[in-house]
Amino acid sequence: MSTVNEIVANYIAAWNETDGSRRRDIIARTWSDDGSYLDSHRDSTGHAAIDAMIAAVQERFPGYRFRLCSGIEAHHDRVRFSWSAGGTDTAPLFFAGTDFAMLASDGRFRMVTGFTDAVPSA
Amino acid sequence: MSTVNEIVANYIAAWNETDGSRRRDIIARTWSDDGSYLDSHRDSTGHAAIDAMIAAVQERFPGYRFRLCSGIEAHHDRVRFSWSAGGTDTAPLFFAGTDFAMLASDGRFRMVTGFTDAVPSA
Repeated sequence: MSTVNEIVANYIAAWNETDGSRRRDIIARTWSDDGSYLDSHRDSTGHAAIDAMIAAVQERFPGYRFRLCSGIEAHHDRVRFSWSAGGTDTAPLFFAGTDFAMLASDGRFRMVTGFTDAVPSA
Repeated sequence: MSTVNEIVANYIAAWNETDGSRRRDIIARTWSDDGSYLDSHRDSTGHAAIDAMIAAVQERFPGYRFRLCSGIEAHHDRVRFSWSAGGTDTAPLFFAGTDFAMLASDGRFRMVTGFTDAVPSA
């Protein structure tokens, strides 16, 4: 069983992995089989849907890399952490958010909810 | 059915209401019958348990008032907002946190998860 820290690191890696086969492998280690992701724009349940969602984000924002930008706070089966992406010369738009997750009994994410902390200025 | 904003305002009011009868009335309007609250120190399910939990916090920290200190972000059935308490001459310890909630179909909170943003320095 992975630690919460490992799962969060895998989660960030999944958003950054552009090789489909490797990405699907990471997703399977990160989310439970019925795991989900929900934010104001996206709603995916199950590994295949999560994989397609991440691929679509990568296609829309090529060259962007997600990075963890907070500590990881966990209690009971609940987890909170923040991420950012962009804000560099090759990926200028800056995005940031905070994700809340609930863990499955095997330690993988069973539910991730994304909230927005920063969107690019016009 | 209350708006999310009204529910969050009720939620803050519940933590501040020291009259037991009025507090239980606010709690019943804020949480669904099987609603829960979970943070690193507290775990309550149902109106009676939530009422006892809030009464215990009020007894431990008399004179402290919770106030909303962020916008309220909501999408689908998910809600995020931040609160703070204290930091005044009569209630000197400063606390802050972010709560993540899921709504029941009737618009009340069915699950609230609390995370810590600030605890008093020693």
